[in-house]
This record gives sequence, C-alpha cells and structure tokens, in this order.
Amino acid sequence: MKAPIDFWFDFSSPYSYIANEWVDALAARHGRTVRRHAILLGVTFAAAELKSPVSYPIKREYSLRDFARSARLERVPYVQPAEFPIPTQNAARVFWWQHDTVGGDAAAAWARAAFRAYFTRGAALHDPAALKALAAEAGLDAGAAEAAWNDPVWKARLKRANDEAIAAGVFGAPFFVADGEPFWGNDRKPQLERWLSTGPF
Amino acid sequence: MKAPIDFWFDFSSPYSYIANEWVDALAARHGRTVRRHAILLGVTFAAAELKSPVSYPIKREYSLRDFARSARLERVPYVQPAEFPIPTQNAARVFWWQHDTVGGDAAAAWARAAFRAYFTRGAALHDPAALKALAAEAGLDAGAAEAAWNDPVWKARLKRANDEAIAAGVFGAPFFVADGEPFWGNDRKPQLERWLSTGPF
Repeated sequence: MKAPIDFWFDFSSPYSYIANEWVDALAARHGRTVRRHAILLGVTFAAAELKSPVSYPIKREYSLRDFARSARLERVPYVQPAEFPIPTQNAARVFWWQHDTVGGDAAAAWARAAFRAYFTRGAALHDPAALKALAAEAGLDAGAAEAAWNDPVWKARLKRANDEAIAAGVFGAPFFVADGEPFWGNDRKPQLERWLSTGPF
Repeated sequence: MKAPIDFWFDFSSPYSYIANEWVDALAARHGRTVRRHAILLGVTFAAAELKSPVSYPIKREYSLRDFARSARLERVPYVQPAEFPIPTQNAARVFWWQHDTVGGDAAAAWARAAFRAYFTRGAALHDPAALKALAAEAGLDAGAAEAAWNDPVWKARLKRANDEAIAAGVFGAPFFVADGEPFWGNDRKPQLERWLSTGPF
C-alpha cells in the first residue's frame, strides 16, 4: 500500500478549491489516497511572515483573473465570490468534527460541498445561518454542526491542525506532501503527477 | 502576422531562466515571436510592495527545491548559484544596448548566454570582470559592453524598461502578455500555450 498524499487547504482559497476537484482522481491514477487537512491560511501566513496575494492591490487584479482562468483550464466551475476572502474557521471545524467522529470520507464530502457552495454560488461560509443551511443541505445535522464549531474541542482540533501544518513547512495552500516531497500550489499539479508517476525526478 | 508575446525577466530569476529556455519554441509553435524585456525585479517588487520569495526563510527552503525541480520538469540544466540573488543591472543594460544598437535577436542571444552562465555554472553577472569575460565569450566587444553598462544612456534605457513594466502591470517574473492577457510565472506555461492555441478560454 502506497502512502497517502497529504493535502492542506483553506476553504477561502480559490486554488485550494480547484485542487480539491482534481486531487482524488490524480491520487487514484497512481494507487494513492488523499489525506485532507483543513487549516487557516491566515495562521500559516502569519507564521511565515507572508500575506495573501490579494492583499497587494496590483497582485489582486491579476489574481482574480488567474483564479477564474485556472479554474477554466481544469474545467472546474468558478464564480468569484463577492465577499472574498472570508473567515473559514467554522467550516474548518465542521471538517475536523466530521473527520474525527465519522471519518475521512465524510470530511472530504463536507469539503467538497463547502468549497463548491462558496466558489460557485458565493454561499457565506462565515455566516452562521448560511453555514447551518449548507450543513443541512450536505446531509449533516445542522444543530450539531453549529454546536461543533462553537465547541472548544473542535476549536482546539483546528488549532492543532494549523500547528501541525506549520511544523510540516506549510506556508500556503493548496499544499501537498507526497513521500516527503512538498508541492505548493494548484499549478504544481504537473510536478506532483510526475512525481507520483516516476518517483523522484 | 500575429502579435508578438511580451516577456519580462530578471537575470537573477530562476523561473525566468527556465521560461527563457522554452518561450521561443512555444511562440514558434503558434506562429508568434517573442519580445523580450530585461528588467530589475527589485524595482517592480518595490512598486507592488512585494518581496522576493527567497527573502522569507520558510519559503526560501521550498523555493530552492522548487527551482531545481521546475528546471528538471522542463529538462533544463540547473545548478543553484551559491551567490543568489544577485544585482543584475549591468547584465540588463548590456541586453538593452544590444537590443537597441543591433536588434532583438542579438539581445535574445545575450539573454540566453547570461542566463545559462549564471544558472549552470554560477558566473558572477554582478562582478564587472566576470561580466566582461562573459561578454567576450558571447562574441561581444567586452570593453564596449563595460562602457555600455556605465553609460547614462543605457542606465536610462533600463530605467525606462522598468517603468514600462510597472505601467504594464508587471509585478514579478517571468511575466508574459499575449494579446493583452497577462500570465505570471514559469508555471503558467500551460495556460499561455492554451491561450495561444485556442484564443481566450
């Protein structure tokens, strides 16, 4: 059994959303599975003394164009959310609650649902009412989801995920590690695939 | 006749070096030519309030690994220079001197020679003696090259190139514009190629 691919993401990261759409198929093509880690990019940015690309005016304009174009290249539906970026700690805590109480597949299903809701119809993941509605739509108990994101247990779980990401050298998202080799960015898909296909190159 | 592809680069940028190796063939596949612009990344970084990725310790370690891996993916020889990054204004002034007094092909030949010398054998482009030796090796009059990089005319020419880059929205390198569409990074090769192949997508 080959080792899983670790995949770190933030629910407010367009490139993470795009990567979330291709990573399972890519992994499967090479007999791998994906181990997802929901994190807060703001925390890893702060640790690395970085800022979001969209916090720089000149880069922001380019980035908005590139988000949509990168999605089209992968044939992934994409509609730039009007509110962007947004705080994603509640969505991430729901991820870890599902991950630890149900399993990785349930957490992955939530990740897919939340990403798609935000990046195709601007669902307000940072708004408790909208997030509860999305949880229900995704087949979760909305009240239990809300209780989870307010629960110190799942707050601590997300904090641990952030700390582990920083310890693993993660400074952006999407971030992948395969067999110890780090790959940063949706645009590293060709390198990741080459690595899985041929081994170190 | 289709419009040329504009290509901005800094001689100290590994991703620019890699792109410089593939951009002509890519352009030719789509009936295009390349219009090169040697600039100083430090100037565009400052204008956009950005810093080099290698100025962030966590990002630096990843970047050094990614430079070499990105080169291997494109089958371009790459040896990380021990002195990195380096000031490149003299090499860039030689580029513009060749460009304006001989032509674009001569400037491109110099770009190729200088990039390869720095990124395969660590030639010190920032050292006047080493740069003169490289100029001679590249078939230029070394004394005239040195006179050019000290000449206010070519200093002003490089400054103009930097200003024009900033006006064109360039905030990093390699940076390409094809038919008004901007592409930033060696890793945007697939998007640039798709654009040239199919038009807007």
